[in-house]
Amino acid sequence: MPFSKCYLFQNLSASQIERIEAISRKKKIKKGQWLYREDDEAEQFYQVKEGAIELLTLVDETIEIPIAMIRPKIGCFGIGALIPPYRHSLSARSARDSTLLVFKHVDLQNLMRDDPDLGCIMMTNMAEKLRDRLKETRHELKIHFMNLVRSATF
Amino acid sequence: MPFSKCYLFQNLSASQIERIEAISRKKKIKKGQWLYREDDEAEQFYQVKEGAIELLTLVDETIEIPIAMIRPKIGCFGIGALIPPYRHSLSARSARDSTLLVFKHVDLQNLMRDDPDLGCIMMTNMAEKLRDRLKETRHELKIHFMNLVRSATF
Repeated sequence: MPFSKCYLFQNLSASQIERIEAISRKKKIKKGQWLYREDDEAEQFYQVKEGAIELLTLVDETIEIPIAMIRPKIGCFGIGALIPPYRHSLSARSARDSTLLVFKHVDLQNLMRDDPDLGCIMMTNMAEKLRDRLKETRHELKIHFMNLVRSATF
Repeated sequence: MPFSKCYLFQNLSASQIERIEAISRKKKIKKGQWLYREDDEAEQFYQVKEGAIELLTLVDETIEIPIAMIRPKIGCFGIGALIPPYRHSLSARSARDSTLLVFKHVDLQNLMRDDPDLGCIMMTNMAEKLRDRLKETRHELKIHFMNLVRSATF
């Protein structure tokens, strides 16, 4: 089942996966096209079937910081669609011609309302992913900090 | 109700709050004592009633990076007790003589299993908090990045 690869859908039952599969639809996007920009309303969650999507943040209008490259095996992005106030905290652009599975925010919310067990599992998966990203980002900050200490010391 | 201040317990019903209150117990801790260290097994989630708890990470055995000071009004910490694999990703030390409310991991898990709606709400609150911390940490990284660009340019 392709959904099992996406961290959000781990630990769900076969019937829960079926219901999630039923609300998805396919979308194709050309290389270089933007899916959304930082602070846009987050109406959809995405899974990469083919191609690659880059997540990035802008320092200013000319400097981009790459955050992650989302590939078919790793899977999914657009978590703003699941967390209040439902806005994207990064920008997403297609790095290649890509095929996505799209899950509407409103459909996911309805599934979670009708089956709170499914909601609890998905939000636990989400918290786990965010905690991991936070640890990675703190580790990067530590490296900057150590470099600063070293350059001040020597 | 004191629980309403903790982000984890937002949006719960009065009866859900009562069940959470019923599993809590009080604990006193002296200034300077460690509650847990990074990578320890996370058996408990905490809410600060009085005093202050500092969360920090170690660069090495001599250098600490402060992450947050948890005070009674902001409230709670120890999220490792709610997210697999149930380990602390920071260290916690009492900055003053403090009084805490303690929630055992196993009791919270039982509440969430018996009432998945409560679990879904708490894990959504958790994801929201982690997303906010991730945004703040990325913002700090952006500042380091801009400083590096500036020092390389001028």
